[in-house]
Amino acid sequence: RREEMARSTQLIDNEVFRAYATYTAIVLLKMMLMSLVTAYFRMTRKAFANPEDTASFGKGESAKKYLRTDPDVERVRRGHLNDLENIVPFVGIGLLYALSGPELSTALLHFRIFTGARILHTFAYLIPLPQPGRGLSWAVGYSVTFSMAYKVLKTVWLL
Amino acid sequence: RREEMARSTQLIDNEVFRAYATYTAIVLLKMMLMSLVTAYFRMTRKAFANPEDTASFGKGESAKKYLRTDPDVERVRRGHLNDLENIVPFVGIGLLYALSGPELSTALLHFRIFTGARILHTFAYLIPLPQPGRGLSWAVGYSVTFSMAYKVLKTVWLL
Amino acid sequence: RREEMARSTQLIDNEVFRAYATYTAIVLLKMMLMSLVTAYFRMTRKAFANPEDTASFGKGESAKKYLRTDPDVERVRRGHLNDLENIVPFVGIGLLYALSGPELSTALLHFRIFTGARILHTFAYLIPLPQPGRGLSWAVGYSVTFSMAYKVLKTVWLL
Repeated sequence: RREEMARSTQLIDNEVFRAYATYTAIVLLKMMLMSLVTAYFRMTRKAFANPEDTASFGKGESAKKYLRTDPDVERVRRGHLNDLENIVPFVGIGLLYALSGPELSTALLHFRIFTGARILHTFAYLIPLPQPGRGLSWAVGYSVTFSMAYKVLKTVWLL
Repeated sequence: RREEMARSTQLIDNEVFRAYATYTAIVLLKMMLMSLVTAYFRMTRKAFANPEDTASFGKGESAKKYLRTDPDVERVRRGHLNDLENIVPFVGIGLLYALSGPELSTALLHFRIFTGARILHTFAYLIPLPQPGRGLSWAVGYSVTFSMAYKVLKTVWLL
Repeated sequence: RREEMARSTQLIDNEVFRAYATYTAIVLLKMMLMSLVTAYFRMTRKAFANPEDTASFGKGESAKKYLRTDPDVERVRRGHLNDLENIVPFVGIGLLYALSGPELSTALLHFRIFTGARILHTFAYLIPLPQPGRGLSWAVGYSVTFSMAYKVLKTVWLL
């Protein structure tokens, strides 16, 4: 039992892995928040995608008019999809990076810049901020993931 | 060689990690099934997104009419995207959670409730069931992931 | 410190895990490339989704006409979404598979066929190639992930 505990907490005892765990949990929670923002806009804008979602607004034609797209809802959905497209590579490559033995300070720099960039990206998308605000925050996160992938491939191929 | 085997099977020897592996494989396979359901509806409803997919139905205008959206196809696609939005956080946060040393019984409870909720969500979306069936199954899975993230952050910050 | 280094590089010392790291980094980078391809087509086709993205083309009606969907842009976006739907299961199930102690040669076969199939799928989607080119490359990648999931569940349940 104790031996198993030791084994199971091994990775989590590693400082870089712990940093990875923290920032991965944060960006994934941030991504999950987009579902709530979408739900909020769907309800306040009364714009739904499924007939069964509008049933409480009445029957037939009176409910049908709420089956529509709304610019605010679509904006949040684009932000959510952009999160998926960028946070999935971060989580996958970040895990390999954390296991490739980087310096803690370098790893923290990568994780923190990515997390900050994605939070900025969300604000830039939802407010919305004028370009190139959103574009730049996207590019920063993208570059961080790229940098981690470079470190992973370098480590793997040199071993 | 033997040493390497030992190292490689280390995590998989851990009971909590094995539970994580089981339920992660199940929910990811369930998500993959959505591709087949989409293909089934595209073919039976004759509703395609790419011109090259309709080439076998003839040339020119006769094939062009199958380049259309269909409510049943769009419904499956929304279900698939909802899976991505919710199963990706589960897989990522669940891995960190499994490595954070939870009790096996607590971990099993989290994994099983999430898996059950997502399977229910799929049925609620595809049948479709009246609301709040889909909404509740979504919220249950969402809460489980949130609870695991809380445990991860608590463990990491207290170490 | 040295002990920690040893711990942190443990997984990355394992040959199968190193193969997993290589091919996961490659397919995730390939998926990330789709963002650049989308941006390229949005700019050359002048087809944008957000009003703030068209501000540099002038004000009011003159910029509004660039807020439109374009078949080439939509094609890349469908390819990108298909990547998410297929590469996410590969990354998740592949990690469990790499930890389930497969033979290195078998693992390499799985990872390489998947990676090749997804690269072919991208070309088949973007060129586009006539069907069943895209369909087959999709099916090959899908089957590889399925085969890895089978191995994971067999290993976990037999332990």
